[in-house]
Amino acid sequence: MFGEMRLTRKDTIIDIPSPPPGFLCGAAHCGLKRNQAKPDVAVFLCPTGAVAAGMYTTNSVRAACVDFNRGRTPAEGVGGVVVNSGNANACTGRQGVTDNARMAEILGEAVGFDPSHALTLSTGVIGERLPMDKLERGIRDAVQAAGADAAHLEAAARGMMTTDRTLKVASQTAETSQGPVQLVGVAKGAGMIGPRMATMLAVIMTDARFSAATAQSLLQSAVAKSFNCISVEGHMSTNDSAILLASGHGPAIATAADTAAIAKTLDETCLALARMIPSDGEGATHLIAVKVTGAPSDADADRVARTVAGSALVKTAVAGADPNWGRIVSAAGYAGVTFDPAAVRLSINGATVFEQGAPVAFDALATSQSIRDHFETIIELSLGSGAGAANHFASDLTAEYVHINADYHT
Amino acid sequence: MFGEMRLTRKDTIIDIPSPPPGFLCGAAHCGLKRNQAKPDVAVFLCPTGAVAAGMYTTNSVRAACVDFNRGRTPAEGVGGVVVNSGNANACTGRQGVTDNARMAEILGEAVGFDPSHALTLSTGVIGERLPMDKLERGIRDAVQAAGADAAHLEAAARGMMTTDRTLKVASQTAETSQGPVQLVGVAKGAGMIGPRMATMLAVIMTDARFSAATAQSLLQSAVAKSFNCISVEGHMSTNDSAILLASGHGPAIATAADTAAIAKTLDETCLALARMIPSDGEGATHLIAVKVTGAPSDADADRVARTVAGSALVKTAVAGADPNWGRIVSAAGYAGVTFDPAAVRLSINGATVFEQGAPVAFDALATSQSIRDHFETIIELSLGSGAGAANHFASDLTAEYVHINADYHT
Repeated sequence: MFGEMRLTRKDTIIDIPSPPPGFLCGAAHCGLKRNQAKPDVAVFLCPTGAVAAGMYTTNSVRAACVDFNRGRTPAEGVGGVVVNSGNANACTGRQGVTDNARMAEILGEAVGFDPSHALTLSTGVIGERLPMDKLERGIRDAVQAAGADAAHLEAAARGMMTTDRTLKVASQTAETSQGPVQLVGVAKGAGMIGPRMATMLAVIMTDARFSAATAQSLLQSAVAKSFNCISVEGHMSTNDSAILLASGHGPAIATAADTAAIAKTLDETCLALARMIPSDGEGATHLIAVKVTGAPSDADADRVARTVAGSALVKTAVAGADPNWGRIVSAAGYAGVTFDPAAVRLSINGATVFEQGAPVAFDALATSQSIRDHFETIIELSLGSGAGAANHFASDLTAEYVHINADYHT
Repeated sequence: MFGEMRLTRKDTIIDIPSPPPGFLCGAAHCGLKRNQAKPDVAVFLCPTGAVAAGMYTTNSVRAACVDFNRGRTPAEGVGGVVVNSGNANACTGRQGVTDNARMAEILGEAVGFDPSHALTLSTGVIGERLPMDKLERGIRDAVQAAGADAAHLEAAARGMMTTDRTLKVASQTAETSQGPVQLVGVAKGAGMIGPRMATMLAVIMTDARFSAATAQSLLQSAVAKSFNCISVEGHMSTNDSAILLASGHGPAIATAADTAAIAKTLDETCLALARMIPSDGEGATHLIAVKVTGAPSDADADRVARTVAGSALVKTAVAGADPNWGRIVSAAGYAGVTFDPAAVRLSINGATVFEQGAPVAFDALATSQSIRDHFETIIELSLGSGAGAANHFASDLTAEYVHINADYHT
């Protein structure tokens, strides 16, 4: 599986698709970002009303939009999502709640739908009030600019970006008994990435027709295997949200086989988007894929994969092209999962380096060169203690990450 | 409390004490380290037999010495501890277990006591076999060189060091009803520091007389408030161990008041040693003291303090003298503790920056200058949700940390 999916830097530059039938996208610049060439408002609209589902950060400290959307999803008849970047509207107290509700009102007014059917997303600096006058103009401009072309989708995806260097768009088609179904997703995120039960910002659109309950169930399952299995530095944000919108302009999903086909394609779309985030992690020079098998349970495997991928010592070793397996094995050891070290097998980029509790003679120079030669470093750890498996994808840790985050102005 | 204890770089250069009555210390170079000027074997001897207690890493992947010592403590009649640096003897399989047992035998033979009364400690590179011929010579040389002067203690402390830049020695006197009791401790550690229920290597010696059960209880309590409340990058090592040795050459501890006096002094000794470790953290330019109060329980407070101190975004902000309170509040939010953000109060170096769920106007430039001017940055976070309190001490995260760990040769 890792072989097929192995990511190179080039993979993040893709052909941008149009939104699926039933959707319009738009963006505008209103001054939340200083650079006028960068849009800071995006809208994802479904004039005929979409089924919507959402997954949100489990942080105790949450942005206003998170609690707002959680109360409004799953739902039917959602007219659209408005996103602003450059300001997270988090830790802004009651004023932030009021401002967020006003964002939804402006969207409904501008498009002409009941504002109680609008969703909101914010991302950017924590602790500053939204400049509502600017934002109102931005939302109206973005709605005016909305359209159904690839260029509109690209503009909306750019309107979500903060420290992202690459555009994050994924597109897949599911074949169902009623014909093909399109899924198109956009995401943002490069720092403060360590989500649980949701992530950064992602909006996934499909023309399929299914119920709000099905949407929620499909999204929850996909997020668990994608956005919840990535990290840059492991810091969970206050705004993490993933929204699924289904316009119903395409085939209705009626059979179990069709649901399974959609589920598989949604999983792939979310995983593709999710992998783009640590690949674009602040300062990252490698994507680290940690594949754990043989754990007592899937949850245990997740714990081990997350802990290995979260270790600063593992991340710096990969950045330095150092096949330092001792750091990997010792990180697995403190994940809170009981296993027998004598049953552990570890490989780095296919080279077995540790087996049955003891080091294996391997060509360290060749493995180091392999790390240097590939953007993705693959760590496969078999615990030999069960059938549990999980993957986690993380950025490496470079001096550039420190420079970006030590010098970032608050 | 933080005011009195605030650490400056200078505090780590201290007058070296002699070992307490009843102990001899020694060190030698045998070739585990390349630099001949650096000792790589240390011995802490109690020819009349010491009461010994130990606290050890909870990592599933452990060095041979950890399981060996855990099986031998608490105990009476311990003749000494032998330490080697430069090689952790971890992930070395059965050979490692045999080599470790042989270390104990060599110590017993060299000093002339039953090897079943010896303890062993190793620290350094993971996954390489100990060169037993060199080490045997080193242990014998260290025993030959042992003595009761401050210079002997200093040599033994240096013999434990790996990437440490500073010597880590602490000395305190407890006043008891039977007279003064001395406590002298040495520690090592600068990287792979994120212990739970023990830490890096520490040996604390006292001339007090108490039972092995009392020793274990005193050490467990002291470690919980010291070595378990520090981190550099949060990576728990395979070798973390703290050993308490009591020669009994001084006053016998009989009353509850005397036990309390010893406990308080041992706590202070361990905390002083513990704080030296993140202060000397690889690449560190600041010690970060996170003081959490108002949590539902002490365990919850510990979780929040540990999570804030472990956030790469918080650590880079301090390195950059950036009073970025949003990173601190959001990290507290994902610690797995339920609290009401509207009740939270946060100060950085005494300046209140967040209160009642909303930002407070503060002089960001002055707070930034305060971070720059002090080696220790004090983060005080009151959750307003109970009486639980805890402290955690961590290094900041600098580009130098990354350079050290990306370029370290395995």
